[in-house]
Amino acid sequence: MVPRLDLSPTALLESPLDRNRDAGSMQRQLHDRLKRAILDGSLAPGSRLPGSRALAEALGISRNTVAATYEHLAAEGYVQPDRQGTRVTALSSPAPAKRTARPPGTPATAQRLAKIRPLASRAETDAALRPGVPALSHFPFAAWRGALDRAIRGAGPAALGYGDPLGEPRLRAAIAGHLSVARGVRCEPGQVVIAEGAQEAISLCVRLLSNPGDTGWVEDPGYRGVKAAMHAGDMRIVPVRVDTEGLCASAADWQKHPPRLVYATPSHQYPVGAVLSIARRLDLIAQARKHGAWIIEDDYDSEFRHTGEPIGAMQGLVSDAPVLYVGTFSKTMFPSLRLGFLVLPRQLVPAVQAPLEEMLRGGHRYEQLAMADFIESGQFSRHLGRMRRLYRDRQQALRLALHKHLKVPHEIDGGYCGLHLTVRLPARFDDRKIAAEALRHRIAPSPLSGFAMQPTERDNGLVLGYGNTAAELFEPLVKRLSQLARAAQHGTPPASAH
Amino acid sequence: MVPRLDLSPTALLESPLDRNRDAGSMQRQLHDRLKRAILDGSLAPGSRLPGSRALAEALGISRNTVAATYEHLAAEGYVQPDRQGTRVTALSSPAPAKRTARPPGTPATAQRLAKIRPLASRAETDAALRPGVPALSHFPFAAWRGALDRAIRGAGPAALGYGDPLGEPRLRAAIAGHLSVARGVRCEPGQVVIAEGAQEAISLCVRLLSNPGDTGWVEDPGYRGVKAAMHAGDMRIVPVRVDTEGLCASAADWQKHPPRLVYATPSHQYPVGAVLSIARRLDLIAQARKHGAWIIEDDYDSEFRHTGEPIGAMQGLVSDAPVLYVGTFSKTMFPSLRLGFLVLPRQLVPAVQAPLEEMLRGGHRYEQLAMADFIESGQFSRHLGRMRRLYRDRQQALRLALHKHLKVPHEIDGGYCGLHLTVRLPARFDDRKIAAEALRHRIAPSPLSGFAMQPTERDNGLVLGYGNTAAELFEPLVKRLSQLARAAQHGTPPASAH
Repeated sequence: MVPRLDLSPTALLESPLDRNRDAGSMQRQLHDRLKRAILDGSLAPGSRLPGSRALAEALGISRNTVAATYEHLAAEGYVQPDRQGTRVTALSSPAPAKRTARPPGTPATAQRLAKIRPLASRAETDAALRPGVPALSHFPFAAWRGALDRAIRGAGPAALGYGDPLGEPRLRAAIAGHLSVARGVRCEPGQVVIAEGAQEAISLCVRLLSNPGDTGWVEDPGYRGVKAAMHAGDMRIVPVRVDTEGLCASAADWQKHPPRLVYATPSHQYPVGAVLSIARRLDLIAQARKHGAWIIEDDYDSEFRHTGEPIGAMQGLVSDAPVLYVGTFSKTMFPSLRLGFLVLPRQLVPAVQAPLEEMLRGGHRYEQLAMADFIESGQFSRHLGRMRRLYRDRQQALRLALHKHLKVPHEIDGGYCGLHLTVRLPARFDDRKIAAEALRHRIAPSPLSGFAMQPTERDNGLVLGYGNTAAELFEPLVKRLSQLARAAQHGTPPASAH
Repeated sequence: MVPRLDLSPTALLESPLDRNRDAGSMQRQLHDRLKRAILDGSLAPGSRLPGSRALAEALGISRNTVAATYEHLAAEGYVQPDRQGTRVTALSSPAPAKRTARPPGTPATAQRLAKIRPLASRAETDAALRPGVPALSHFPFAAWRGALDRAIRGAGPAALGYGDPLGEPRLRAAIAGHLSVARGVRCEPGQVVIAEGAQEAISLCVRLLSNPGDTGWVEDPGYRGVKAAMHAGDMRIVPVRVDTEGLCASAADWQKHPPRLVYATPSHQYPVGAVLSIARRLDLIAQARKHGAWIIEDDYDSEFRHTGEPIGAMQGLVSDAPVLYVGTFSKTMFPSLRLGFLVLPRQLVPAVQAPLEEMLRGGHRYEQLAMADFIESGQFSRHLGRMRRLYRDRQQALRLALHKHLKVPHEIDGGYCGLHLTVRLPARFDDRKIAAEALRHRIAPSPLSGFAMQPTERDNGLVLGYGNTAAELFEPLVKRLSQLARAAQHGTPPASAH
């Protein structure tokens, strides 16, 4: 008896199967056609498929191919075997191809996304004077490749697997040792948590220590990334002014907006370059203790101190300070390494160790082992020494170029440390306009006003990164910026720039 | 006139300075002693330091060293120059060394941390039968090192800098191409976001799409990582039961607990191995549209399908499905690579692109370029093919070993795909006890009850990973587990195990 064919032949046979292929390909073609026919309704729910033998004969293909296809469709749930053969599943929802393909009205995203203010434009890494980029062409690439090779050969395939979620123990120990000598940080290796750069370290602080709605203090003007991290944690952000001694919190600030988290860059305020005075440091620690707040100390470029000895970290200033110390190798090594770290206060470790092990996955083990090797062998310190001299020279050259060629009134801030200088301009020179124009010339200063949440007249100027720009370019670059600044002056017609 | 010395000599001279050192070392010693004297109060606030010439003479060191030390202390804020010389700063808070060194009472951590339940114990990567670990010794390590070398040589120092925060464009394109062929995912490269493995991809979904207090559905039993991510986002977690067709959401579930996010593993439910039927898939998409929910489709081990063709992803089932597709190279390549990805729905890209650029930093560019090379050159597909055969053979061998040697009543679940089998045991065999005992023998099955939020009698058993354990070990391992299971039976004295 020929089995009844509920199957409309159009679904399967409107175009012949491509036969110049192997059995696997035949099966895929048949599967796709049947699936399409079920989804678009040509094979009605409850209808029966032909027996595998009959269909194989009708199509001139092997019965095994048909049987395997039916099995696959059954595993997916498109069809169900029953006593009489194979039946098309009655799908409870309308067939999707018949739906309107309209995406749901407004995509519902998290409310916090509206608060994360994106940059107007993102400069290339190699744009001139871009802040935050170290001297990539001076990086000891061959030595780093050697360390990476040694790590791969030394650890072998064993380090392909999951490791310690908090990071390779050898790197955590190397960082603890380095920080103790170089930054006066007091910690055991067990307090060090490896993170994807400073940004993830800050984001971990937010997730470990704050509840939604808690208050977070940020420096104003200050680092944009901390605001993104606090918004992502649904914190209430309170901007606190920065003056020549750094973060300037009054008694009223502590009374009116007691924080759960305080973010600070004490060694070299980003972006204005102030050094947080010792009096302010001690006061900040004392007030944080009193109000149950935690301080996030972001020590982002303190290794590049140009004058005298580096200033020790707040973390090591007093015992058991409520300070989470954040550091990164993005500037001291290179940005795409994505290797940073968080030093937990000793007293916090018991409470956060287990949750961290659930939240983190470790990994990047060869890179971490290579970094440990780089520190242990002294190559890291030697590289830092070379870079410190290079950046000191670049900074002096940039100051000289500004002195000679920046023909608008200005003040220069900072410069104790790091990779950037901040040039303040009178408010009539619109910093965003200058920066936008500069980008067309592949010059990427950041407008100072972009770092402020409550910009004042003083928060106008340009943050100039000298890390990745050769000193011989500074004179022409500053001349160009000077032209652009004059052209951006309120009331000046654009033509005067040329 | 000899300057008045407010400085108590004990602070500086109780032990002589170590003179067999360079000028830098002398300066460091002097700085440390003065700083310590200020912090412990031996140098009182407001007291005056000796003139640099006088101190240099008293100590028998160079005046430059003293002057540089004073400058450093002034930059830190410990002292202030005034008309009469250098004065110790009046620090507003009590000197820290005099404080009690007691850490603040209870460290205030985020409330959500209490909800993240840590694992009782964490097994080593190479413990036998540990779920979720691929066959590390079969990884083509030399080929991967070759790809990495080519990436480093090809991109050179340029890729040391920041790249696209959403990931290397070349890798995003390679993933889009691979997913379209292998998984039926429909996407443009611009929809692909590179993440640190599946865990970060899921965590991004939570941060992009949910507000605190929103409801998230998880499979019960199900993947622990999604619960950690949802807790970290302060979501309300609702467990939804899983049956033989996968996630089993009723009309009542949609009414009573309408979700913002639904997490599902449709290809191979983790850990019980069910395949979400096509009817359920279509219903889930229809209901998600109706209720404004997003579906997170975690396709974690679908590449290792053992029988027939892989089942296509939900993402590509209908146009513009509200599905975020999550994948990882942790199983297909190796865990410590930490490379995963998220495919955004087309309609979501405009809303989340800019916030993602603020939240992410890109990086790991050489590894990403090497991965792109691995996919483009076909090495990835060939590796997958070899691993698929290996895992199929291992699974068959494990089934056979269980059949022969597991001398307690049991049922085996799953096995269409992947790297693990789930063995259900009657409730009288305490799975946590068996797993804890097994760990002493370096055998690391996961107890099934550990995956459930509302465990029923059926959620008792062992999840056995066969990915990283050689087949010849299965018989002795299963014999051991069988003994341990019998010993863990309620009411059985421990001695009967031996």
